[in-house]
Amino acid sequence: VRFTLNTSLRPVEVAHLLEKSPPKERQILWNLIKEENEGKVLQYLPDDIQADILSTMDTDRVLAVTESLDTDDVADILQQLPERVTKELLQIMDQQNRERLEEILGYPEDTAGGLMNTDTVTIRPDITVETVLRYIRRHNEIPEMTDSLFVVSRKKESYIGILPLTKLLVSDPNITVREIMNTDIDPIPADMPDDEVAKLFEKHDLVSAPVVNTEGRLLGRITIDDVVDVIREDADHSLMSMAGLDEDEDTFAPLMKTTRRRAVWLGINLITALTASAVIGIFQDTIDKVVALAVLMPIVASMGGIAGSQTLTLVIRGQALGHVERSNAGWLLNRELLVGGLNGLLWALVVAGVSIFWFEDTTIGLVIGLAIIINLIAGALSGTLLPLILKNWGIDPALAGSVLLTTITDVVGFFAFLGLATYFYG
Amino acid sequence: VRFTLNTSLRPVEVAHLLEKSPPKERQILWNLIKEENEGKVLQYLPDDIQADILSTMDTDRVLAVTESLDTDDVADILQQLPERVTKELLQIMDQQNRERLEEILGYPEDTAGGLMNTDTVTIRPDITVETVLRYIRRHNEIPEMTDSLFVVSRKKESYIGILPLTKLLVSDPNITVREIMNTDIDPIPADMPDDEVAKLFEKHDLVSAPVVNTEGRLLGRITIDDVVDVIREDADHSLMSMAGLDEDEDTFAPLMKTTRRRAVWLGINLITALTASAVIGIFQDTIDKVVALAVLMPIVASMGGIAGSQTLTLVIRGQALGHVERSNAGWLLNRELLVGGLNGLLWALVVAGVSIFWFEDTTIGLVIGLAIIINLIAGALSGTLLPLILKNWGIDPALAGSVLLTTITDVVGFFAFLGLATYFYG
Ligand SMILES: [Mg+2]
Ligand SMILES: [Mg+2]
Ligand SMILES: [Mg+2]
Ligand SMILES: [Mg+2]
Ligand SMILES: [Mg+2]
Ligand SMILES: [Mg+2]
Ligand SMILES: [Mg+2]
Ligand SMILES: [Mg+2]
Ligand SMILES: [Mg+2]
Ligand SMILES: [Mg+2]
Ligand SMILES: [Mg+2]
Ligand SMILES: [Mg+2]
Ligand SMILES: [Mg+2]
Repeated sequence: VRFTLNTSLRPVEVAHLLEKSPPKERQILWNLIKEENEGKVLQYLPDDIQADILSTMDTDRVLAVTESLDTDDVADILQQLPERVTKELLQIMDQQNRERLEEILGYPEDTAGGLMNTDTVTIRPDITVETVLRYIRRHNEIPEMTDSLFVVSRKKESYIGILPLTKLLVSDPNITVREIMNTDIDPIPADMPDDEVAKLFEKHDLVSAPVVNTEGRLLGRITIDDVVDVIREDADHSLMSMAGLDEDEDTFAPLMKTTRRRAVWLGINLITALTASAVIGIFQDTIDKVVALAVLMPIVASMGGIAGSQTLTLVIRGQALGHVERSNAGWLLNRELLVGGLNGLLWALVVAGVSIFWFEDTTIGLVIGLAIIINLIAGALSGTLLPLILKNWGIDPALAGSVLLTTITDVVGFFAFLGLATYFYG
Repeated sequence: VRFTLNTSLRPVEVAHLLEKSPPKERQILWNLIKEENEGKVLQYLPDDIQADILSTMDTDRVLAVTESLDTDDVADILQQLPERVTKELLQIMDQQNRERLEEILGYPEDTAGGLMNTDTVTIRPDITVETVLRYIRRHNEIPEMTDSLFVVSRKKESYIGILPLTKLLVSDPNITVREIMNTDIDPIPADMPDDEVAKLFEKHDLVSAPVVNTEGRLLGRITIDDVVDVIREDADHSLMSMAGLDEDEDTFAPLMKTTRRRAVWLGINLITALTASAVIGIFQDTIDKVVALAVLMPIVASMGGIAGSQTLTLVIRGQALGHVERSNAGWLLNRELLVGGLNGLLWALVVAGVSIFWFEDTTIGLVIGLAIIINLIAGALSGTLLPLILKNWGIDPALAGSVLLTTITDVVGFFAFLGLATYFYG
């Protein structure tokens, strides 16, 4: 007997079920999906899992599976395949599909062109509302998420404007499209990065938007459902990168794959830790004299790291939202330095008090207090400047920022604390 | 001469400009906004900044400013005001607005009811498509983001189904609404939490959805533009909380406000640091004997913390996406423990080698190797279990998780390393 998955589950729900299953159960579940539904499920899976599943299929199977999908989703899937397989697939497709796909695949996955679909409903500017309504009624259905018709020129299919369905429905049947169309919204150039597309959709509360090439010819449209996925991914990106993880990371990736990926991050962080140890190593003699220093030194490094991370996270979020830029970076740095200084002063007093009480030694209080102030200022400085510099160099601040920040606050923290101690006790 | 802001800027762009301005510039910019546009700008500002601006207005001013806004946006703004002011405002409003607002304000801000708007276009099931079209054409305009009409019963306004405009436009004019309406999609109960609403919209690719009360009466509708804001906020929440920041945090908040908020987080983290110091304090004599221990001990704590944070972040993201739950937690814990063990083994060998070479002492290599393995396993264990336990207790794992995790990996790391050293050197 062959069991099949309960067909009352929608493909998106089956995909969710697959995503939250460990590898073995995932394999079993996948085999339960009816062949004709495989493509529909596949399109909702994240890149990592898609690639895994596709790697087990041959070219004909991939073609069959993707047959029923939107062109944009087929493009997403093809992008997970080796180039050789993609070429093979395009050759065996029918011409219309091939041409549409080649149009999308010509643009990187993370641009407007990679995000668009080719299912636009277009009209000419010189026809009347009544003609439009009659033209539409001849369709059996219009594509989902169609909130506007796109007005294009008779020759060259140049984009002219949009006609929202809500406008179409309340307009005088005898009026022409030209008189009621909306030309306020600029079409999206196909090479615009996807995060900028998302910002446009968020700002203008769009449901769909036209995509054009450099000559202004209408290529397709982007719909909000795909933009929501971009927003979710980009927001995930900062969170995951700060822990050295990939936003496509499969929660239930198999053991060896996970171990390998994590090992790299631990290795990079080990360099930080060894650098910190090297700094401590310089001051071995001082620690040998005053062992209380060894007890207290992690406090200085940790407070600086925590304060620095707060600044770093705020600035990285500000960059992602487009708030932090050259013009206000100065104000921000200034405030962060003052916040660091004030909080440094506050907690320096507290920690100094505790230390003096604990070790019955006022010198150690003075040393740790000064070191904390210095390290909180170092944290504020690097938390603000690192993301600005890294972004300028084209390095992802969310990925590299936290390691570099910890290196700085560890080194500065240990150096300030043990250096001051050497001075005062020497 | 009084300058006003370039009126070719849309309200959402003015809001963005305000958001990325330091306090003084922000005040100047705000004063440049024409009074009749203040409300439109206000609705796009985050809670924190809204509250600041509103606190400078009197009740009449607030009423005037919110007059032109959607009911859902007015509700958002009222929620930033002290309760006394809200009550006063409701009293001076006209009855229809008051009733609509009270309906929305009856639900918490972060539920479907708080998110909904009351601008639904409703029709009866027994009329024909032609009648619907004629009825709509009598409107001067239909609300933005109207992709569907809602079908309600003649008495009690009970929700029955939706009629997408795309369907309306291709259907036979003589057919009745009942025959073509879609009853597949369950209406959203007004008390559903907003993150569940967002998941529904993401799953089913919705543009708008009906909201009903417990009796099934249609109360209003939620639109994708507001859901996008929820998605953005919720995704921001994990990132910001893990650094002890609020997702509503204004990047350019004034000095003292920022200092106060950050001081609390530093204070909480100081407890962690002091706990770690107390653990080190137990082993002062051992450190006094072998000063190399002081040099190497931060490595053990740091490696455990990094590995633990990776697990913690993965599990917190998995929880937010609805992937991690009781049924697969066992598999996940198992894999993380193995990953921790394997990576522990790998990096234990590396660090042991470095330590033996550095201090010409094999015992120290053995001690640090074992401590690293123990601490990476502790990191995996707490990184997986903490978020599960915290969520069970109703505590936000993103906020409390990282502090608790660091406490555990610091304590275990120092205790294992110095404890083993005491055993081997004692
Ligand atoms: Mg991707
Ligand atoms: Mg992207
Ligand atoms: Mg794509
Ligand atoms: Mg918006
Ligand atoms: Mg699509
Ligand atoms: Mg899609
Ligand atoms: Mg809020
Ligand atoms: Mg709102
Ligand atoms: Mg929420
Ligand atoms: Mg609301
Ligand atoms: Mg979706
Ligand atoms: Mg709204
Ligand atoms: Mg809104």
